[in-house]
Amino acid sequence: MASSSSSASAVAEVDATKKEAEAEQQEQVVNPWEVSAGKGGIDYDKLVDQFGCQRLDDALVARVARLTARPPHRFLRRGLFFAHRDLNEILDLYERGEKFYLYTGRGPSSEALHLGHLIPFMFTKYLQDAFKVPLVIQLTDDEKFLWKNLTVEETKRLARENAKDIIACGFDIERTFIFSDFNYVGGAFYQNMVKVAKRVTLNQATGIFGFSPEDHIGKISFPPVQAVPSFPSSFPHLFSGNDQLRCLIPCAIDQDPYFRMTRDVAPKLGYQKPSLIESRFFPALQGENTKMSASDPNSAIYVTDSAKEIKTKVSKYAFSGGQDSIELHRKLGANLDVDVPIKYLNFFLEDDDELEHVKKEYKEGRMLTGEVKQRLIAVLSELVARHQRARAQVTEEMVDAFMAVRPLPNMFG
Amino acid sequence: MASSSSSASAVAEVDATKKEAEAEQQEQVVNPWEVSAGKGGIDYDKLVDQFGCQRLDDALVARVARLTARPPHRFLRRGLFFAHRDLNEILDLYERGEKFYLYTGRGPSSEALHLGHLIPFMFTKYLQDAFKVPLVIQLTDDEKFLWKNLTVEETKRLARENAKDIIACGFDIERTFIFSDFNYVGGAFYQNMVKVAKRVTLNQATGIFGFSPEDHIGKISFPPVQAVPSFPSSFPHLFSGNDQLRCLIPCAIDQDPYFRMTRDVAPKLGYQKPSLIESRFFPALQGENTKMSASDPNSAIYVTDSAKEIKTKVSKYAFSGGQDSIELHRKLGANLDVDVPIKYLNFFLEDDDELEHVKKEYKEGRMLTGEVKQRLIAVLSELVARHQRARAQVTEEMVDAFMAVRPLPNMFG
Repeated sequence: MASSSSSASAVAEVDATKKEAEAEQQEQVVNPWEVSAGKGGIDYDKLVDQFGCQRLDDALVARVARLTARPPHRFLRRGLFFAHRDLNEILDLYERGEKFYLYTGRGPSSEALHLGHLIPFMFTKYLQDAFKVPLVIQLTDDEKFLWKNLTVEETKRLARENAKDIIACGFDIERTFIFSDFNYVGGAFYQNMVKVAKRVTLNQATGIFGFSPEDHIGKISFPPVQAVPSFPSSFPHLFSGNDQLRCLIPCAIDQDPYFRMTRDVAPKLGYQKPSLIESRFFPALQGENTKMSASDPNSAIYVTDSAKEIKTKVSKYAFSGGQDSIELHRKLGANLDVDVPIKYLNFFLEDDDELEHVKKEYKEGRMLTGEVKQRLIAVLSELVARHQRARAQVTEEMVDAFMAVRPLPNMFG
Repeated sequence: MASSSSSASAVAEVDATKKEAEAEQQEQVVNPWEVSAGKGGIDYDKLVDQFGCQRLDDALVARVARLTARPPHRFLRRGLFFAHRDLNEILDLYERGEKFYLYTGRGPSSEALHLGHLIPFMFTKYLQDAFKVPLVIQLTDDEKFLWKNLTVEETKRLARENAKDIIACGFDIERTFIFSDFNYVGGAFYQNMVKVAKRVTLNQATGIFGFSPEDHIGKISFPPVQAVPSFPSSFPHLFSGNDQLRCLIPCAIDQDPYFRMTRDVAPKLGYQKPSLIESRFFPALQGENTKMSASDPNSAIYVTDSAKEIKTKVSKYAFSGGQDSIELHRKLGANLDVDVPIKYLNFFLEDDDELEHVKKEYKEGRMLTGEVKQRLIAVLSELVARHQRARAQVTEEMVDAFMAVRPLPNMFG
């Protein structure tokens, strides 16, 4: 997993200014290592058509709500998870009383997570609670060693640190297995890697991922590593004798190429195709056409930020769709399409009525940018403080417990 | 490891007739999956220059004999192991009382081994006995799954069956670790695989191994798997804290590309380059320009052959350099350069004086092909019967013991 629900790490190596200039002319590029928008931001409709996935419509959201007997998560209600592959099939079998498992992951390239990194985990926790199903979380330390200038030891350490933030999201230890590739690859998992690799030609891999002859062969070897957690036989300690168990993958849409490849290969191996539920990207504070960058701490809110830092970042850096003067704003109102505080509230303010009220008042000029930002600061401060309290409770022993290769006897309980 | 000291499996997929016709015009091709001679057989001198390895001369053989205080193996005395890389360095450190380890392997693509398959193991046993050093033996079941039409389960089963034949060669269980990739890849070994993969571009891999865009990515992922047993850190249960221990690899020269790549990468990882000692190919019964083929059981002597089968195969199929009539043979003598019985005796008849005598008498027409073949039948029957007796003693428990991931406290003893 690379950028997972943010455009941050995805474009970190690319100079921002150059990027923006190119964006004027260029097609949008979305793959696991690069997300660059064309003019006017990411065109998600176009992405769905280009990738060949399906739109997650209101009827499907309603069906999720009915089957799980709880309100759909706000990420579903608000179209932030907006696309899928065969989610309907997962719901069909769930309706018949059959089980499935969840798979998500993270590429551990940084010490502290930002809010964008939390999104797939918040959503996955909701899915785990709602469907009462087991979950495997892959930490792709090997990927980050291959793509970044980090040592093996450093990526392994970051994997463990990131696991603490993930655990702090509240996953159920009776249903959750977290693993690092450097520690877990081998045995049945390696066998599946080799089986997948045998079914993908260099031509196909180049077509899907855009490899070049100057790329090292580690990059070309990696896609099977991210593919095989989709297959229950990669986890004999969890799913032995249950090789046809279906898998649902919540992820950002930039991860879709991995699973297009996986879904193409699966039937050739006699395996089930994984289903997907895919999110939009979480924008940088400066707006959707810039990047959240580790080298610019003011581009993102980190889960380690203090209340004061959050206040400063939102106040100073969150791109506003409001007008330049109060007079003009009262007259014209805010442009919600580009307003970052509104986009962030869309992700994190739970109350639908309040969100609609804020959007309406702001759009019609009755609410000012400063007031919207105050509300966002309160929401984010509470969320981050809650995460920090949970993170502080996570011990090394808990990390060991989540990462232990062990059966989960109550995972479907 | 693929063909390891035989041209048999190497060219198994290629139609023999087509091959021979092409050989008239073509350059020789030697890589781990293809060995095809130009006109007049393999030009080993040209190979040494092309690959950039060093000739194993009489002075070096004499030095091995002096340092080990035993006669050099007949494969050394007769130039059958004829090339090396940095063998002198290994001998320098051995002379100073320092240690090294041996690494060899086999790709388990067939049930029964033929004589060509035994050669690296016979020679490695000699090296282990002479230098009293530990040995790791890699069974590349993953490679055979990737290149052949075999299931994972079948390659794993063949790996275990082949391990029995290897154990029957007499390796010291206190100094020998045998492993299958499907079972052993993971942890420190996988970390080294990823480190190697990061240092080899697709361009370089294509240059070394001749991959094409239609090849599956499993092939491109494989070379690091064969590279990393060269590094002691891939075996923490054996060499923990001994990361600079040198490695010597006895193999057939078609395996050289793997280790050219490995030696190029090693210093970039802070590792020692492995040294090599490399053999010629063992010819098919029909001669050096044909192949030992699993689909033609008469092309090779298998270790499962009965005395009667050996007698029939040698009598009927071993290509003779003798003349068409007894009269002509008495007059002109045999052409030893193309005579397969003489080539086989060169590998397997221990007595140098007798070998010289046979060659002289045969060359000068005093000995007939039938007499030389009788001698070869006796030598091979004894060798194969001895192997079969040893093989029958190898139990499943012994295989488990050799393949157990365990420390070897007396491996340098």
